[in-house]
Amino acid sequence: MSSTEDLDYPQILFQYNNGFLVSKIMFTACELGVFDLLLKSEGSLSSDAIAERLGTSISGMERLLDACVGLKLLEVEMKSEGAFYRNTELSNLYLTKSSPKSQYHNLMYYSKTVYLCWHYLTDAVRDGKNQYERAFGVSSKDLFGALYRSEEEMIQFMYGLNAIWSICGRDVIAAFDLSPFTVIYDLGGCAGGLAQECISLYPKSTVTIYDLPKVVQVAKERFVPPEERQITFHEGKLGLFCVCSYAKKTVLNGPCFMITECNENSHHPFLFTSLHVRSFPSLRRNCEALKCFQRIMCLLDV
Amino acid sequence: MSSTEDLDYPQILFQYNNGFLVSKIMFTACELGVFDLLLKSEGSLSSDAIAERLGTSISGMERLLDACVGLKLLEVEMKSEGAFYRNTELSNLYLTKSSPKSQYHNLMYYSKTVYLCWHYLTDAVRDGKNQYERAFGVSSKDLFGALYRSEEEMIQFMYGLNAIWSICGRDVIAAFDLSPFTVIYDLGGCAGGLAQECISLYPKSTVTIYDLPKVVQVAKERFVPPEERQITFHEGKLGLFCVCSYAKKTVLNGPCFMITECNENSHHPFLFTSLHVRSFPSLRRNCEALKCFQRIMCLLDV
Repeated sequence: MSSTEDLDYPQILFQYNNGFLVSKIMFTACELGVFDLLLKSEGSLSSDAIAERLGTSISGMERLLDACVGLKLLEVEMKSEGAFYRNTELSNLYLTKSSPKSQYHNLMYYSKTVYLCWHYLTDAVRDGKNQYERAFGVSSKDLFGALYRSEEEMIQFMYGLNAIWSICGRDVIAAFDLSPFTVIYDLGGCAGGLAQECISLYPKSTVTIYDLPKVVQVAKERFVPPEERQITFHEGKLGLFCVCSYAKKTVLNGPCFMITECNENSHHPFLFTSLHVRSFPSLRRNCEALKCFQRIMCLLDV
Repeated sequence: MSSTEDLDYPQILFQYNNGFLVSKIMFTACELGVFDLLLKSEGSLSSDAIAERLGTSISGMERLLDACVGLKLLEVEMKSEGAFYRNTELSNLYLTKSSPKSQYHNLMYYSKTVYLCWHYLTDAVRDGKNQYERAFGVSSKDLFGALYRSEEEMIQFMYGLNAIWSICGRDVIAAFDLSPFTVIYDLGGCAGGLAQECISLYPKSTVTIYDLPKVVQVAKERFVPPEERQITFHEGKLGLFCVCSYAKKTVLNGPCFMITECNENSHHPFLFTSLHVRSFPSLRRNCEALKCFQRIMCLLDV
């Protein structure tokens, strides 16, 4: 039941209405390198100095910075010469490119790809299918063909996924005691962020990443060093059907363990991932919504 | 200073990252008529029934409804036959088309126009100008030419603005005692939502809406009934310069009163309006950000 005050002035509605403005302010400050510059300069800078160094308009940068202060992504100090801006701890840790926990690639993926897909959410609900065709002019029948429509796009996605695992991968892996399982298959393991967390927490385990050939190739070249002998790869087709067939044949005959996280439609533009659920406690409590969040990871003790 | 927990698991960052998903869920449920159907049906409906009545896919609708439940825009009841959905009080009041406080037009304007403009926020900050050209292929030099690029777009904007005033217009008008002023000019008064609030609170006042000829024409035809003799119109050019010239000549010689709310750049895609400020208390406290929010309303006692 809403209070009269909530009904007279519906804060929650304004918050939802403005949600995309807030997202884009953070994405843009990140993309323009505001947080990187402020980290490097090791002190506070004026709006004019930031605009000059990043090659932007003065008025636009000033307003962007002030919006970031309002969102607590920057701090401001008023001096006699004017306003001076510096990073918050959170921005240093997550919004700079060089931080081990950097979310830069994830945010850029959201800003450039997901944001535009979601512009067509109404069509997605009407049609019951993803909107890569409307958003990017690529066929949406082959989900991974659309998702990995260019090498650049695929690499951005892989970096983005690893960025998310750098925050919550340890929690996912530690949610159950997996120490009895020494041979682990990560189906759709992509750039190996979760595999890395796994061998770090369970040093006796080896993880085989099952993914598309072109994903495996880039993962080997860019993400998993060859000297990392606890992580190996298996090339194959993706899609839940293929993964299930593979799991049934290869895994399910032995003792195994599965973690569900996102289903075959997880890249539909209208689905939340497990991470989104986590950040919305109210959604998490809604069991129906949780149907959407399944990702299969099979763990086999041999 | 952030707590260790906030730094380990940055909720605020996920909230900002996902802000646009939340916006689009609300916009889409509104656009598809979910709230209108549930108001009309005077009870709860199953996901399948809603999908059928609104002509959408079953799977897409089910997920949309569950997301709305998570966001507290709908309530769900689990029966033996499955899940049944109904509106919250807030949704009945603000998200249905027929409610006097309906935000439908405002939300649609945000969803279709503002959302796409903000996709180009990085360019807007770089260039220091609005992005109507990139977003809609119309020249951005003439702001109102871009804003009112079609009659449909202009009418949507006018309905949207009136919707906002239906929530906070009374607060704006009541912020100062305007009872000594009996002749009031609302410069850029558009569809007259604020003028209506004004004559309602100050029955002795008359309000002249100053706006572009085509706006005045639609305002007369659709928004302000001819028998409303306390509201009159004055056609002219818009833009802060023109408004100021007009104000200087016509208004400033007499005793006058001005309320600032948004400046000549207020339709730049990277600016918040006063309404946005209001829903972000942290932004409101940031005086620098408030520089952006000026709209001139001149009130003249004659």
